[in-house]
Amino acid sequence: MEPWTNYRRETMTKTPKDTLVGIGKNLTDGIKKGTPPKIHIPVRSLSNVEFDEKSQKLRIGARMSEREFFNVSHTRKFLQTIEVASILKGLLDIGKHSSLRDVFYMAKRTIPGTKTNVVDQQTESDKAIEDLELMSGFSRENLHVNANKMGSVAGNVIIEDSGDTINWGKMGSGGWSIPSNVENIQFNKVNAKYIIYMEKAAVWERLHEDKFWKKQNCIIMSSQGQSTRGIRRLLQRLSSEHKLPIYVLTDNDPWGIYIYSVLKFGSISLAHMSEGLAISNIKYIGVTCDDVEKYQLQRHYIALNDKDIARVKQMREYEWFKHNKAWQRQFKMMLNAKAKVEIQALSARGITFISDTYLPEKIKNNEFIN
Amino acid sequence: MEPWTNYRRETMTKTPKDTLVGIGKNLTDGIKKGTPPKIHIPVRSLSNVEFDEKSQKLRIGARMSEREFFNVSHTRKFLQTIEVASILKGLLDIGKHSSLRDVFYMAKRTIPGTKTNVVDQQTESDKAIEDLELMSGFSRENLHVNANKMGSVAGNVIIEDSGDTINWGKMGSGGWSIPSNVENIQFNKVNAKYIIYMEKAAVWERLHEDKFWKKQNCIIMSSQGQSTRGIRRLLQRLSSEHKLPIYVLTDNDPWGIYIYSVLKFGSISLAHMSEGLAISNIKYIGVTCDDVEKYQLQRHYIALNDKDIARVKQMREYEWFKHNKAWQRQFKMMLNAKAKVEIQALSARGITFISDTYLPEKIKNNEFIN
Repeated sequence: MEPWTNYRRETMTKTPKDTLVGIGKNLTDGIKKGTPPKIHIPVRSLSNVEFDEKSQKLRIGARMSEREFFNVSHTRKFLQTIEVASILKGLLDIGKHSSLRDVFYMAKRTIPGTKTNVVDQQTESDKAIEDLELMSGFSRENLHVNANKMGSVAGNVIIEDSGDTINWGKMGSGGWSIPSNVENIQFNKVNAKYIIYMEKAAVWERLHEDKFWKKQNCIIMSSQGQSTRGIRRLLQRLSSEHKLPIYVLTDNDPWGIYIYSVLKFGSISLAHMSEGLAISNIKYIGVTCDDVEKYQLQRHYIALNDKDIARVKQMREYEWFKHNKAWQRQFKMMLNAKAKVEIQALSARGITFISDTYLPEKIKNNEFIN
Repeated sequence: MEPWTNYRRETMTKTPKDTLVGIGKNLTDGIKKGTPPKIHIPVRSLSNVEFDEKSQKLRIGARMSEREFFNVSHTRKFLQTIEVASILKGLLDIGKHSSLRDVFYMAKRTIPGTKTNVVDQQTESDKAIEDLELMSGFSRENLHVNANKMGSVAGNVIIEDSGDTINWGKMGSGGWSIPSNVENIQFNKVNAKYIIYMEKAAVWERLHEDKFWKKQNCIIMSSQGQSTRGIRRLLQRLSSEHKLPIYVLTDNDPWGIYIYSVLKFGSISLAHMSEGLAISNIKYIGVTCDDVEKYQLQRHYIALNDKDIARVKQMREYEWFKHNKAWQRQFKMMLNAKAKVEIQALSARGITFISDTYLPEKIKNNEFIN
């Protein structure tokens, strides 16, 4: 079976707008000929998500589903998909972007002569947008629907964005605020050996105050919790266009490891976007279970709760972790210790220990989990 | 009774470091003379928080509590306060900042010869920091403990921060990322008529893409949810140093109104910081219950849940809202409608309706709640 990416490549020669117009034209042409309107969408369930050994990324499989206007159980979803396609075309026409929530409110209109709304819940318009990502082969950012905005970046990099030239090394204590959509950023100068991406803004401020990125000639980037799509795309672009390795720094707990997992392999719910979002050249720098021993952080252990334990057990069964000895060892150590440790536990060794000792040592000695 | 602010003013002639050293010296001098060590801290409970009609800010009252080392029920807290004071002095010595979490890990050491930790929970070190804010009269940012970092800003403003000159008008689509600590920012040029502060990053991106701040000559600033201390201080400084009015834009629900309430009057838990954080020159621009009628947003009503209703009823009893007819009217309208409305509901009228019509109209007609 051919994976969906091949289907996607075929459509990628057109612009997002032409692709949406094409979908509409196919439908109206069919209607004129008397064919019942229907659309084809790749099946988006775990059963149609596969882990591609070669690219080391999750991807969507070949199974397609049909959605027919004249099938009463499909009608509502069919209408929603087409309505949202029309809204997105409208956004592309005027060159404006919107959030998922905006699209919901734009789609939430009452069908004339009835008391029925096109959508009642945001999940309905969200699903329609995902359908259109799959049908068009374009990300929702390309279709002008932005994700949440979050995160900061600093480093020896000059970019061009919306007509402004921005130096990531001259942003004071705050850094550049990462937008939700980074598709149109142009990199003018990238002078860095690697990127450290961390889950906590407070750790970013620590490294920034310590001038870590200047001393180490790297880029520091953070979010707060799980990475946004804007951040994932920014990391992906820096990795593929500038061949920068990325080191992920999180708490030593299953949620931190899953942040790494999503960045590297892609996520199940966005498997169809892995090609644009997942980053192969990414390594986990810490905090590892070995670090806990090496840096005597055991006294800062926090007991794993039932949810943590279940999550570790679930993750170690994932196809992309199952055959990876280094990760299996980590999962085992964490379950044996029945405990997790936060990045900030390193502060017990001194506030700048992370910048002066921990990170430089690990990078020098190539101590990563891959 | 003299409010705590007078006590605060008295200490403010010293630097934060000298103040902490002074606290320590008082104790050691006393010990040398044979006096049992004790410290005085203003009582920090709702009963000692008052709403000052004149300044329109919450403030802490005059009641003080004693904490004695030789009183067994005080010993642990006494030790924690002094230990944390010593950590903060250490940070001031080396010119480094830390997060609340870092301070917790630095304080979490075992007392030699015992199995007892100085602190076991972050709430203990957090409370000690608040105590030290009260004792020293300095904010924790002044004592080098930073809050969470969040939010973006854009506008015709040039600042100097950590040796960099930063133009908030040349930050591409992302904006400047607001640091957790804005005490050392210097405003070189502020060319704006007002500030719009909004609770949602997606709305900020909407106004930014529409070049709202350029067209209207204003500053746009956002967080995500409740405002951080860094944002509150930045707004406060722009308001007091540059006399800019601030308009708050939130969802039409009790949580949005409480964001406005905290910015304007201060919060109960940080009543001792109101002077530095609360902003008198602030107005609520929307979304109001009147807007819902005027712009026909009723079809986007979301039913109030029990928690929402309880919150509205609680807020309308607050001293600072109780005698305010405009707000009482809003609370009544919201309870009558039994419904709330999100900012993004305005998108149903067109994606740029908020930038082209809603906000300009409201500002032109001076339609604020105060």
